[in-house]
Amino acid sequence: MYGLIGKMRAARGQRDAVMDVLRESTAALPGCLSYIIATDPADADAIWVTEVWTDQASHKASLQLPEVQAAIARARPFIAGFEFQIETQPVGGFGLPAPEKAG
Amino acid sequence: MYGLIGKMRAARGQRDAVMDVLRESTAALPGCLSYIIATDPADADAIWVTEVWTDQASHKASLQLPEVQAAIARARPFIAGFEFQIETQPVGGFGLPAPEKAG
Repeated sequence: MYGLIGKMRAARGQRDAVMDVLRESTAALPGCLSYIIATDPADADAIWVTEVWTDQASHKASLQLPEVQAAIARARPFIAGFEFQIETQPVGGFGLPAPEKAG
Repeated sequence: MYGLIGKMRAARGQRDAVMDVLRESTAALPGCLSYIIATDPADADAIWVTEVWTDQASHKASLQLPEVQAAIARARPFIAGFEFQIETQPVGGFGLPAPEKAG
């Protein structure tokens, strides 16, 4: 599996506008096992996104999907930057569907 | 909902021992919606844990469960420390079960 943990910073006061785009555009994309959007009680303009994909190729391919490209275009004006992003290798736990293949 | 994103550091060479305890002890705890364990390709002794609970009280209560206490006791000798832990407020996304109540 392939994972991402990222912290995005919205332009001041625009966090909810970014969240709205993320929520509306989050759907069952091929290879996506989990995509969780969260606010940060200690940082009013921050958005945390934690993702699990079957493999890195699925994540990469998703960025080319028309609906994802459209969401990126809609959200971009409200995003100040990305402060933190790390790649992980999820190995298990609770709450993931059984992956179709190892990543 | 209540979320945690944390990075744990295993004692040198003991990451897999910690992972084994985490995997064996991860089960359907009351209020737990997601608990994902991941390694870090850039940091051989690191373990990332991302959690989603229905609310903070459920998370707190889980720490008192006998099976969780036992897992903590088993893992502790192999853990060097906790480098990073933030609390989040997950608001949605993909791959979470419908929560029974808002957190």
